[in-house]
Amino acid sequence: MAYRIEKDTMGAVKVPSDKLWGAQTERSRNNFKIGVPGSMPLEIVYGFAYLKKAAAYTNCELGVLSEEKRDLIAAVCDEILTGMHDNQFPLVIWQTGSGTQSNMNVNEVVANRAHQLAGHTIGEGEKTLQPNDDVNKSQSSNDTFPTGMHIAAYKKLVEVTIPGVTALHKTLKEKSDQFKNVVKIGRTHLMDATPLTLGQEFSGYVSQLEHGLAALQNTLPHLAELALGGTAVGTGINTPKGYDVKVAEYISEFTDLPFITAKNKFEALAAHDAIVESHGALKQLAVSLNKIANDIRMLASGPRSGIGEITIPANEPGSSIMPGKVNPTQCEALTMVCAQVIGNDMAIAVGGMQGQYELNVFKPVMASNFLQSAQLIGDACSSFEEHCAKGIEANTEVIKRQLNNSLMLVTALNTKIGYYKAAEIANTAHKNGTTLKEEAVNLGYLTEAEFDEWVKPEDMVGSN
Amino acid sequence: MAYRIEKDTMGAVKVPSDKLWGAQTERSRNNFKIGVPGSMPLEIVYGFAYLKKAAAYTNCELGVLSEEKRDLIAAVCDEILTGMHDNQFPLVIWQTGSGTQSNMNVNEVVANRAHQLAGHTIGEGEKTLQPNDDVNKSQSSNDTFPTGMHIAAYKKLVEVTIPGVTALHKTLKEKSDQFKNVVKIGRTHLMDATPLTLGQEFSGYVSQLEHGLAALQNTLPHLAELALGGTAVGTGINTPKGYDVKVAEYISEFTDLPFITAKNKFEALAAHDAIVESHGALKQLAVSLNKIANDIRMLASGPRSGIGEITIPANEPGSSIMPGKVNPTQCEALTMVCAQVIGNDMAIAVGGMQGQYELNVFKPVMASNFLQSAQLIGDACSSFEEHCAKGIEANTEVIKRQLNNSLMLVTALNTKIGYYKAAEIANTAHKNGTTLKEEAVNLGYLTEAEFDEWVKPEDMVGSN
Amino acid sequence: MAYRIEKDTMGAVKVPSDKLWGAQTERSRNNFKIGVPGSMPLEIVYGFAYLKKAAAYTNCELGVLSEEKRDLIAAVCDEILTGMHDNQFPLVIWQTGSGTQSNMNVNEVVANRAHQLAGHTIGEGEKTLQPNDDVNKSQSSNDTFPTGMHIAAYKKLVEVTIPGVTALHKTLKEKSDQFKNVVKIGRTHLMDATPLTLGQEFSGYVSQLEHGLAALQNTLPHLAELALGGTAVGTGINTPKGYDVKVAEYISEFTDLPFITAKNKFEALAAHDAIVESHGALKQLAVSLNKIANDIRMLASGPRSGIGEITIPANEPGSSIMPGKVNPTQCEALTMVCAQVIGNDMAIAVGGMQGQYELNVFKPVMASNFLQSAQLIGDACSSFEEHCAKGIEANTEVIKRQLNNSLMLVTALNTKIGYYKAAEIANTAHKNGTTLKEEAVNLGYLTEAEFDEWVKPEDMVGSN
Amino acid sequence: MAYRIEKDTMGAVKVPSDKLWGAQTERSRNNFKIGVPGSMPLEIVYGFAYLKKAAAYTNCELGVLSEEKRDLIAAVCDEILTGMHDNQFPLVIWQTGSGTQSNMNVNEVVANRAHQLAGHTIGEGEKTLQPNDDVNKSQSSNDTFPTGMHIAAYKKLVEVTIPGVTALHKTLKEKSDQFKNVVKIGRTHLMDATPLTLGQEFSGYVSQLEHGLAALQNTLPHLAELALGGTAVGTGINTPKGYDVKVAEYISEFTDLPFITAKNKFEALAAHDAIVESHGALKQLAVSLNKIANDIRMLASGPRSGIGEITIPANEPGSSIMPGKVNPTQCEALTMVCAQVIGNDMAIAVGGMQGQYELNVFKPVMASNFLQSAQLIGDACSSFEEHCAKGIEANTEVIKRQLNNSLMLVTALNTKIGYYKAAEIANTAHKNGTTLKEEAVNLGYLTEAEFDEWVKPEDMVGSN
Repeated sequence: MAYRIEKDTMGAVKVPSDKLWGAQTERSRNNFKIGVPGSMPLEIVYGFAYLKKAAAYTNCELGVLSEEKRDLIAAVCDEILTGMHDNQFPLVIWQTGSGTQSNMNVNEVVANRAHQLAGHTIGEGEKTLQPNDDVNKSQSSNDTFPTGMHIAAYKKLVEVTIPGVTALHKTLKEKSDQFKNVVKIGRTHLMDATPLTLGQEFSGYVSQLEHGLAALQNTLPHLAELALGGTAVGTGINTPKGYDVKVAEYISEFTDLPFITAKNKFEALAAHDAIVESHGALKQLAVSLNKIANDIRMLASGPRSGIGEITIPANEPGSSIMPGKVNPTQCEALTMVCAQVIGNDMAIAVGGMQGQYELNVFKPVMASNFLQSAQLIGDACSSFEEHCAKGIEANTEVIKRQLNNSLMLVTALNTKIGYYKAAEIANTAHKNGTTLKEEAVNLGYLTEAEFDEWVKPEDMVGSN
Repeated sequence: MAYRIEKDTMGAVKVPSDKLWGAQTERSRNNFKIGVPGSMPLEIVYGFAYLKKAAAYTNCELGVLSEEKRDLIAAVCDEILTGMHDNQFPLVIWQTGSGTQSNMNVNEVVANRAHQLAGHTIGEGEKTLQPNDDVNKSQSSNDTFPTGMHIAAYKKLVEVTIPGVTALHKTLKEKSDQFKNVVKIGRTHLMDATPLTLGQEFSGYVSQLEHGLAALQNTLPHLAELALGGTAVGTGINTPKGYDVKVAEYISEFTDLPFITAKNKFEALAAHDAIVESHGALKQLAVSLNKIANDIRMLASGPRSGIGEITIPANEPGSSIMPGKVNPTQCEALTMVCAQVIGNDMAIAVGGMQGQYELNVFKPVMASNFLQSAQLIGDACSSFEEHCAKGIEANTEVIKRQLNNSLMLVTALNTKIGYYKAAEIANTAHKNGTTLKEEAVNLGYLTEAEFDEWVKPEDMVGSN
Repeated sequence: MAYRIEKDTMGAVKVPSDKLWGAQTERSRNNFKIGVPGSMPLEIVYGFAYLKKAAAYTNCELGVLSEEKRDLIAAVCDEILTGMHDNQFPLVIWQTGSGTQSNMNVNEVVANRAHQLAGHTIGEGEKTLQPNDDVNKSQSSNDTFPTGMHIAAYKKLVEVTIPGVTALHKTLKEKSDQFKNVVKIGRTHLMDATPLTLGQEFSGYVSQLEHGLAALQNTLPHLAELALGGTAVGTGINTPKGYDVKVAEYISEFTDLPFITAKNKFEALAAHDAIVESHGALKQLAVSLNKIANDIRMLASGPRSGIGEITIPANEPGSSIMPGKVNPTQCEALTMVCAQVIGNDMAIAVGGMQGQYELNVFKPVMASNFLQSAQLIGDACSSFEEHCAKGIEANTEVIKRQLNNSLMLVTALNTKIGYYKAAEIANTAHKNGTTLKEEAVNLGYLTEAEFDEWVKPEDMVGSN
Repeated sequence: MAYRIEKDTMGAVKVPSDKLWGAQTERSRNNFKIGVPGSMPLEIVYGFAYLKKAAAYTNCELGVLSEEKRDLIAAVCDEILTGMHDNQFPLVIWQTGSGTQSNMNVNEVVANRAHQLAGHTIGEGEKTLQPNDDVNKSQSSNDTFPTGMHIAAYKKLVEVTIPGVTALHKTLKEKSDQFKNVVKIGRTHLMDATPLTLGQEFSGYVSQLEHGLAALQNTLPHLAELALGGTAVGTGINTPKGYDVKVAEYISEFTDLPFITAKNKFEALAAHDAIVESHGALKQLAVSLNKIANDIRMLASGPRSGIGEITIPANEPGSSIMPGKVNPTQCEALTMVCAQVIGNDMAIAVGGMQGQYELNVFKPVMASNFLQSAQLIGDACSSFEEHCAKGIEANTEVIKRQLNNSLMLVTALNTKIGYYKAAEIANTAHKNGTTLKEEAVNLGYLTEAEFDEWVKPEDMVGSN
């Protein structure tokens, strides 16, 4: 392979000559061979592209960077955002915990690519832009990485998570309406209980997602706070006056999202409670979705020896050995995602709790877990919505049979004959394998007519 | 021991004659010998007392319970709330997952005690109140337990957690102000970095707690929603019209807290996402507090071979073998609490995700973990505030010495001579064990006068 | 209340005169008002009693303590082990993370009680024993607390956890044998699958517990290693030669358990990986038990609209509102325990990972979570065994009906006519609501006789 | 793009014509657009290649597959193991929880590729091998996926994890030996304590890793048990007699690892406690490594205002803004890995606990988390060993200065003058900023000569 020589403050390094990165990226590539190469999420790189461009604009506006340099930096950042340089970011999550090397990766790529855009050949002549002095001007890894992380996290929530959950919420709401008159047996402790409508059952899912979305929205203001302008330790050393507010405005403008500068930069570098907070809402959604998906597969279980009250779409052959089997595969994908998100929540907590003095050095692991969760919840909800929820139908015949069999309809008699006599009726019918009505009359507690008047499943589902 | 006979729908049970509980409580005591007896938190019992009283008032107002019965129920509930019946609730967390037996424990105690208040002897004559038909009227375990759980959780947050965290926040804010002019070395990656003030360092802690308290406040509306009125499966079977709204109003009145009826009762029985959500905020606080407490013990470490930039109060001899040792014991208690809360968060997630159909049967474990976390965070913050934070003092001599030694003051030169030359100065001084000024001049990059003008720690801490 | 004055190196403290503890215990009581008073587990106190006695014997044998003092110390330790001084240990988990104050609590109680046993009045005359110089001789909190923790943990596993799990294992094995000929439908993905016997289904549970017990046994050797003899930092300062080995022998003798001195005392003070390791096995058991208990409640669900293949004992009325309802309450208690143990595992990991230099200061939180898990798993298995597993019966009528209905019996035809044709039969029967045999013949793939010969559920369950 | 038509029991599907996969793979690709495409780990695919080949050999040996078919299957499996078909496995983790679609992906690729090897063109003529009837013969997804998962997990532990940890263990052992005479101050509670050698400090790390490796080894026998032969529900339906034992022997032969058939196949399909168990050991290692890496960065902190007792290699410029800064980057990568592994442990527990009836449908999420952890721990240990541990040096000057300053050397006087007088000396010296010797003599408790004789740090480090 062909190489060129790149230098940093520690000396010279050989870099593949077809790559735009420089010495520090190459050092990191060699020093951190941990897990899959290139695992640092591209979303973080794009977050950097937004912020480097915004920093260049701000630096220029505040008089510390020339317009020429600003435009070069901005041009490369725009290129990065198209995805055309995706293969220039080879570093892993498992590097320095401030993400310094990914910051330098961006700085180096911007500098070298700018050199090209300025008409030069990389490695020849003086660099058009200095990675540290120009591209990184008024910045530190310590404030850029958390800024890139917040940009990436916020965008992912808004672009993937919230739309996915919202779509599922909408479809479940429609199903709840569709099933609003389907009276069915309720189940508590997995045991037969008093009736409700299938629509009511689904309304619980709808309400869970509503609360979950609200909880997620509640976390966005903290996530909107950007560390940029804090530089090395939060004091903003080496930034021009007014920089932090201005740079956040540019980021907000470029991303069209309501980012603001963090009121306290010391927190913004040394703690990532905003990530902990927002991911807490993702975990809550995972908890909700696990319940919903598990319910749906239980309700759809069978086809002959399960609950069978609903049918779900058959999307693929279910078994490599059992012919004709159809499985609740979307429920399974979704619940696996829930398990992952719950695990990720713990990884994020463990990272978040271990900041020391002016810096938390678990940034990349916190960011990558967050982004994975946000993507997976959004994608899995979309997939579940499209390939499962939308196609759910009530199996009314089964529902009716199970409802009419139920001993728990006896509950309607509590207010007529008291809990103790009602219990006696139910227990006797259970023992004898008979119906409630038979035993109610046999025991002499009420007449058949009274039973028929008082025990009507459709009257037991309330108006909630 | 003397016994009396109590009955339920399953038959007769012997109950210690000096106890107010009945057959179902006694069955549960014998069937669930798991862990410490009586582990069901009393806060839940008190939550039940509020709701049973509120239910009695509502039932009476809606015409399904006599004023006489209402007043008897209310009288016993008021007694329970004084703590005088604390030893009448012997059940454990590890019972049925709906908390049915604790609901019945309350029903039985209220019924038997009411019998006494009505001038009778327990076990003699017809019961003045029926546990199920009167005390439990318009209720089910399935809606009462989550209601009691929300009442207990909300009260604990408001009475213990928030005051404790708020007190610590206030004291740390005062310390931040007190130390606002103490310029000290910053540390990132645990390594010497550019300076900041000790007040700025503490302001990060203050900001973390502010965000944490805001996050906790955000969760309160969901927690304020009460399940009561959903009864068995969420439909509100066997409740009079208007009951749910009214009973929440009474609970709100009796507790002086903004409880409302849950918009969706199906969620309120089958999922406890509100508990998951609020505890997520407690976990976030734990993450923050772990960082803060760990920083403080590192800053106070020494006395001679540590960082030693602050001193903390010496509250007790630190060692049973090393004379004169003083340890950061409040930091340790607090960080242990953080570990517990993070663990509890997982227990709550695991419980919360496993609801099935119309019921989640992990209510007691979710409630007890929540209440423990809320209590511990509140108490530990109060203890830490009183016995540690309040007494923190800056060790200005040490701070000054370490600041002036720092090689990272070189960062101020970036904007004067560029990052690369500045690095050369720092590296040379590090290698030679000399000062920055010596090497800056030696290397010929600037004069002594320039150095003195440009490198002033007090100018490097910004105005944040 | 009456007080006496007790002193330590920091000065005088007022202690309730009816209490045996001294100045440091009292300080801790006042300085750590966090959570429930007295939360430090008594098992830890008893662990201290064993080790203090063993230390006294060893010190005496090695010539640094008189026989008289040895016997006094031993006498009080024996008293403590009877439980008669349980109310002398008022401290909480949330104290100093080395447990120093609980060590001193024991030292002080032993010293004061020894003074009484020697015929004196506490607070009068020179102390017969010095808490630090005699009772704590050759010890530090740093090695005693982890020793007490290992003693308590090991004993709990051996006395509660393993017997509980073993009893449940035995009963499930008996059930597996009892049901070995009950052929039933299998379920994968919750969907109907090929048959197996109910005994085979239960054998999976048996195998899980076998593996779990083996995993737990694997962790005991690490847990058997005792820190005692490491004193302050692991070097064994202030211990006589040979002390560590000898004191472990005495502990082993007094507890009748195979304790040995830790090969490396530096690990034994600074890390509690043995606790992490053993609790990992408890977590594994929790994972297994959750599966088992959930299966059993699903199999027992109904009685009319669930799976209903087994019946479990009805131990108590299941509902406060639905008369005659019976619930799988033991399954619920057990699965709640599982949730707790999984949460505790995280609390222990978070504590275990944060040791610093020569000491881990999360000892009490690690110990208390461990002991709770070990107790709960043991108790819950015992309870589940006695009140549920033992009484499980097969509901053969339901089992037979569901088996014969099953479309997945078609799998037996794969090796005769190939997967694709078999799938066609199953799909057609499902669509038409017919039987496999009808469609197999209709489609012309085999004769009725062939079907009867090839599709026999009892031949499909293998010989495993 | 060019397509061909592939069919399964549900009908026809268009597949890119340059791909070897078939209808079911294509359906899955379209139905599960969740997260990164192709996320199913290739290690699982390779595990399948081993087992498909072993199954072919066993089927042939037991007379149910022709030698010709066996050889074709084996040839493709061997090709897969070279990596040449890596791009033929496009499916994601988040599919059906039994991994059915990945099993079918392998079956389809083997069948189509075999068709090519047999001289045909895919899509033309009758398939040389049937995916279900030949490639999947005597198999089900339900037993193949867990088998592939165990093969992959076991291999990863043996090839990556254990070598990485072992290398680090070896280097730390060498460092412990190298530093065995470097007496330094100990630190407990982060506070100055009695001395030990730097070698002793490192020996604690060595011991932790020894115990961790032993714990991991203890879990291998469970992981060596293979599900293969259980087929659909554990009964082994559609397998020839003797198949399970034989196929495990072939797998053992092909992988050169001690795999055996699982004694109980019902567990092996319905629970993945072996994964939970082995990952528990990985979590234990993470807990250990976090302590070790954190200690090392604290010991190396500075260079001027930290602890500074050791130096670690400077591998890259540490800061994009602070010139000359060097950071403990390998410690940071390693501790981030620890956070991830601890999170993964929870994801695995949540998956493992939710098996239902005859199947656990969290297989892919459990497998992928396990493989990630095993890879990361191995890689991070290797990286840490090579780029950090190997280069650790003692900073003897700093060590000596801090040792001689220490007040805790007073502990040596306990056995001479008692704990209380020793404490008085230390407290006075601390208050006055003087030395122990000065105050010891001033207070009249001992002579200078006695002090010099009794207080020798090098005598305080024991012989451990």
